[in-house]
Amino acid sequence: MAFIHDDFLLESAAARRLYHQHAAAEPILDYHCHLSPKDVAENRRFNNLFEIWLEGDHYKWRAMRANGVDERLVTGGADPYDKFLAWARTVPATLRNPLYHWTHLELARYFGIDELLDESTADMVWQRANEQLAGEALRAHGILGKFGVVAVCTTDDPTDDLEYHRQIAASGLKTKVFPTFRPDKALLVSQPDLFNDWVGKLAAAASIDISSFQDFLDALKQRHDYFHSLGGRLSDHGLNVCYADPCTQDEASAIFEEARSCQPASPEEHRKFASFLMLYFGRLDAGKGWTKQLHLGARRNNNSRMFAQLGPDTGFDSIGDWPQIDALGDYLDLLDSENALPKMVIYNLNPADNYAIATMVGNFQDGRIGGKIQFGSGWWFLDQKEAMEWQMNALSNCGLLSRFVGMLTDSRSFMSYPRHEYFRRTLCNLLGSDVEKGLLPDSDELLAPLVQGICHGNARELLGLPLE
Amino acid sequence: MAFIHDDFLLESAAARRLYHQHAAAEPILDYHCHLSPKDVAENRRFNNLFEIWLEGDHYKWRAMRANGVDERLVTGGADPYDKFLAWARTVPATLRNPLYHWTHLELARYFGIDELLDESTADMVWQRANEQLAGEALRAHGILGKFGVVAVCTTDDPTDDLEYHRQIAASGLKTKVFPTFRPDKALLVSQPDLFNDWVGKLAAAASIDISSFQDFLDALKQRHDYFHSLGGRLSDHGLNVCYADPCTQDEASAIFEEARSCQPASPEEHRKFASFLMLYFGRLDAGKGWTKQLHLGARRNNNSRMFAQLGPDTGFDSIGDWPQIDALGDYLDLLDSENALPKMVIYNLNPADNYAIATMVGNFQDGRIGGKIQFGSGWWFLDQKEAMEWQMNALSNCGLLSRFVGMLTDSRSFMSYPRHEYFRRTLCNLLGSDVEKGLLPDSDELLAPLVQGICHGNARELLGLPLE
Amino acid sequence: MAFIHDDFLLESAAARRLYHQHAAAEPILDYHCHLSPKDVAENRRFNNLFEIWLEGDHYKWRAMRANGVDERLVTGGADPYDKFLAWARTVPATLRNPLYHWTHLELARYFGIDELLDESTADMVWQRANEQLAGEALRAHGILGKFGVVAVCTTDDPTDDLEYHRQIAASGLKTKVFPTFRPDKALLVSQPDLFNDWVGKLAAAASIDISSFQDFLDALKQRHDYFHSLGGRLSDHGLNVCYADPCTQDEASAIFEEARSCQPASPEEHRKFASFLMLYFGRLDAGKGWTKQLHLGARRNNNSRMFAQLGPDTGFDSIGDWPQIDALGDYLDLLDSENALPKMVIYNLNPADNYAIATMVGNFQDGRIGGKIQFGSGWWFLDQKEAMEWQMNALSNCGLLSRFVGMLTDSRSFMSYPRHEYFRRTLCNLLGSDVEKGLLPDSDELLAPLVQGICHGNARELLGLPLE
Repeated sequence: MAFIHDDFLLESAAARRLYHQHAAAEPILDYHCHLSPKDVAENRRFNNLFEIWLEGDHYKWRAMRANGVDERLVTGGADPYDKFLAWARTVPATLRNPLYHWTHLELARYFGIDELLDESTADMVWQRANEQLAGEALRAHGILGKFGVVAVCTTDDPTDDLEYHRQIAASGLKTKVFPTFRPDKALLVSQPDLFNDWVGKLAAAASIDISSFQDFLDALKQRHDYFHSLGGRLSDHGLNVCYADPCTQDEASAIFEEARSCQPASPEEHRKFASFLMLYFGRLDAGKGWTKQLHLGARRNNNSRMFAQLGPDTGFDSIGDWPQIDALGDYLDLLDSENALPKMVIYNLNPADNYAIATMVGNFQDGRIGGKIQFGSGWWFLDQKEAMEWQMNALSNCGLLSRFVGMLTDSRSFMSYPRHEYFRRTLCNLLGSDVEKGLLPDSDELLAPLVQGICHGNARELLGLPLE
Repeated sequence: MAFIHDDFLLESAAARRLYHQHAAAEPILDYHCHLSPKDVAENRRFNNLFEIWLEGDHYKWRAMRANGVDERLVTGGADPYDKFLAWARTVPATLRNPLYHWTHLELARYFGIDELLDESTADMVWQRANEQLAGEALRAHGILGKFGVVAVCTTDDPTDDLEYHRQIAASGLKTKVFPTFRPDKALLVSQPDLFNDWVGKLAAAASIDISSFQDFLDALKQRHDYFHSLGGRLSDHGLNVCYADPCTQDEASAIFEEARSCQPASPEEHRKFASFLMLYFGRLDAGKGWTKQLHLGARRNNNSRMFAQLGPDTGFDSIGDWPQIDALGDYLDLLDSENALPKMVIYNLNPADNYAIATMVGNFQDGRIGGKIQFGSGWWFLDQKEAMEWQMNALSNCGLLSRFVGMLTDSRSFMSYPRHEYFRRTLCNLLGSDVEKGLLPDSDELLAPLVQGICHGNARELLGLPLE
Repeated sequence: MAFIHDDFLLESAAARRLYHQHAAAEPILDYHCHLSPKDVAENRRFNNLFEIWLEGDHYKWRAMRANGVDERLVTGGADPYDKFLAWARTVPATLRNPLYHWTHLELARYFGIDELLDESTADMVWQRANEQLAGEALRAHGILGKFGVVAVCTTDDPTDDLEYHRQIAASGLKTKVFPTFRPDKALLVSQPDLFNDWVGKLAAAASIDISSFQDFLDALKQRHDYFHSLGGRLSDHGLNVCYADPCTQDEASAIFEEARSCQPASPEEHRKFASFLMLYFGRLDAGKGWTKQLHLGARRNNNSRMFAQLGPDTGFDSIGDWPQIDALGDYLDLLDSENALPKMVIYNLNPADNYAIATMVGNFQDGRIGGKIQFGSGWWFLDQKEAMEWQMNALSNCGLLSRFVGMLTDSRSFMSYPRHEYFRRTLCNLLGSDVEKGLLPDSDELLAPLVQGICHGNARELLGLPLE
């Protein structure tokens, strides 16, 4: 029997029934990812397995480095096949890492390859995959269709002109592609060089001459409006911790002016400025019925030497252990107090914080929108069976699993769509196991809506994307 | 088969044997709860299922809000039946939340109702429950008798005259009802209005004219003596984190005088004052052989808007992520150093702290009283299967499960007694699973005393309540 | 069937196969322990079961105190047999604590005793064990041979003359015994009395007149060289948290001079000085290809009263909850930035930090040495089934289990060698369970090297001890 078989991850009869009958066929609503809109617009063709699978995948890079593979074969100048071979040799060393499951699930679902990848099968896999990549079915559009992706929300800078989103919308592609407003660079007053560059781009994008802090706010709002006009209904923020320091507009304005004149903000000033802006962004989202996403807890760019060599997002990030709750609670409370709390999805990266976050979201459910404040799905290092189960158990025990908006890929790769399948199997296995133990009633009348809602329906309902 | 059946939660033969033969019949010693002494004294009759089940249950309120139920139907002015119906509609949305288990366990044990609650069964459940609530068996006294409750320790303010406790004691009720000394308001020097109100009540209760800090200490001791005279043998404190700042009596006195003249204490002064008083309370408890309870880690009243509307304990509390260990360790050490460390039960709310707390209690076991310092049972958000198991596993691995004082309801509701059954089934399931795996000897000679001790005997022995 | 039987802990057929065929016969490389080199050199004979089993075991002491056993029978003046009897009476109270498993595993493996220890069997166990201790087979050398220990790395102060290591090397003992460089006392500038005493010893050991900070550094290096000459290839540090404050050599020198003139360093000065030295030690290790061990997170000597009575390492330590990640990340980055990052094993004591640490090590894998930075095995309170599984799951999900250097005893006792068996059974059970669930391919070709590497091969390869 193949390693990836029909009942992979499904340990009980109830799990198998729930997955095959109620989960597998649900469409995918990938409400947060990092796919390239350009690749979608241009219906990218991938020249070989390296391009689609290894080119930008820092998960694999980390594993290769840990296995003693030289950087030349990881991100360096080696030949694509040699890099693929180095990966193939690493695969057996990843047993029990999610990469081992993802690898074989992806080979099976994209290429129908059932063999385990290692040095001995590398050549065969390379050949068979590349043959198929040459066809139409595995170009960008083919992939989105093959996996039943009804919508993709990319992650975009406010200064982006969203030209590719316009093209995609005009193309009649069945999968809708919406932008997500991610203004992380608007907070960079402690790095005036980067900040002022970015303010320049913002001014250009918004066609607003930014000579005051109010202009800056206006330009941000203009971009938010523009994203909305192209179907954007989500914002996103990557933060070590939330910000909730008191800061008046005059104070924020003074910090802004300092940064504009190339004086870096102090850490305290940075927190104040970020707090002010995060409230501003919250109001923008609430005003338009958007959903705000907070990605909390990543400690990025830990390795200075490699950052100088390769830049960000190259596999040198990890999990922080900062206190999260006071600032997060205060932030939510400040918005709620002025009736400007948008719908929200809060993702955390340190699993030690799961319960604290799962209970915090429960303080701001407002009795109007079911599941208004979401404890987000296992993210990054937590996007695997153990940590997905932890997240779903924390959410179940401290809130309502039934209102969960479920999975997203958060991926830069067109090869990541089976993550939804992986999640759904894990979900159904968890429920099935509970049924077997008598912890849940053995009733599809109760469980099918639960499964379907988490796979697709809840996100569709909560996020209100313009799908029709 | 009914969802709640004889072997609910008992997954192995050993679990079933341990529960049915050794756990089920043990009496209940509910050494910490928030039942109303008035309701006991007056043998309250509940007019309908709303009154006994929904009237004060902020767990259910949170779930309803998360499910999008309007506040009118949660705590607002809606008709009791309509509120019950809103709850019934919410129940299927709570699958995997402990509410789903508690709900059906309570319906089964109080009313013999086996049907799953939802909109379709709501009317039937309402009728059948209300019929039975009209009889004697489900008035307050009937319930305490039905569940074999030998003693209840309520949670009381030091200024309480304990008149209802006196009435209950005089009434010959078989269940003993003792007060617990909870002086949280004595620490409120940062809120002089509340503090001075309370000092006024304390002076009245103790018949001591409080014109100095020493008078304040004397009045507290007088109330502690009074609680003792009515069978009180426990104190309790709800604290974000423990307090162990150095503070002389002169310093504490100065902070007290400031608060008396309506100057709020600074955060640092508040910590110092609280540290002084917590040592004072520790000595009072140690002097009389009492057991002190610390409830650590709740972040309360997170939602300002709803706090203004509804006040405390209405479902807007969650789990903090503050450092706990240094202050807790110092507090225990300061008391131990002066031979004034009382018996103690330490409850924590963030499960990430389980191991740190479970090891900390082991530093202060004194070789005279077995299990002198207890790692308390899963509390509030942790009062469910997953978190109970975590607590028992942490305690087992880092200390002696065999000395555990076990479960308490911590509840405001007369409908919560099946929580003991739920805990006992979870305990027996854990032990039974270990037996099946060969991790424990399959020996009732070894395991029956373990089970019985945790269900009842250990609390009875450790706490020394005047039960005869 | 005996409680400790052939398939103890092995719940599946795959687990049993992996353990018996691939794990059991692997030699033991105990790369971190606290055995007495004197006991090895002198081939110590243990006069009775108390001496070999209870004399220095603070795990057992803690359990006895928690069970209400008087200190006289724990560490006090009672007769050895009476102390043993007090322990035997405590054993049934340790059900679910790792002591229960360790106790019976040790009795079985050293003495062939299968009976459960309690008061009724105490006398028989005492007699049978003592008879066997009188023979050659259970003297120090016999034990090391019996358990197939190829090497032991003891833990030694830099001022130690390593005379016993020289004697052992000269004796031709088959088990190699190497020193480990543990310079914790070099950081003690906040306690000038202890520090200056130690600097005196260091000067004597290195035959260097220490009149400047540079002399101090030179003397430390001299000892590092000396340890290397006797086969030392590891260093070790016990730290609450890592140190990574900026500190110039001039600053460190000034703090050193202050301490030499009996002025205690302030907390900030202490952190700076420790940061400087930890970088210095890192460079020494990197320069010689050593492996550095960091033991993070223990809160030691919590009980002042008992510390005054018994001193350190007597059972009054526990788990801290300090932030770990920023300082650890900065420390690794500083060394890496100057190409002076040695191989490293990082052990943490608070399991809440597992994921954060498991991801941090992944930022500094350099692509040359596989598994260069290790997330160390479950340590102290975590050296038991639940926490070993957590550590291996965190490592698996966030890194490469296949590169794991595996188990060590970390023990002061010659009775601890079955800990390796306990770990291996736990490892194989984990893998076997994954095979049964289809989470791992059922292939010994893949799994046998994984098991063997973790049991022995990885440590042998990574640490580069001079075994031939």
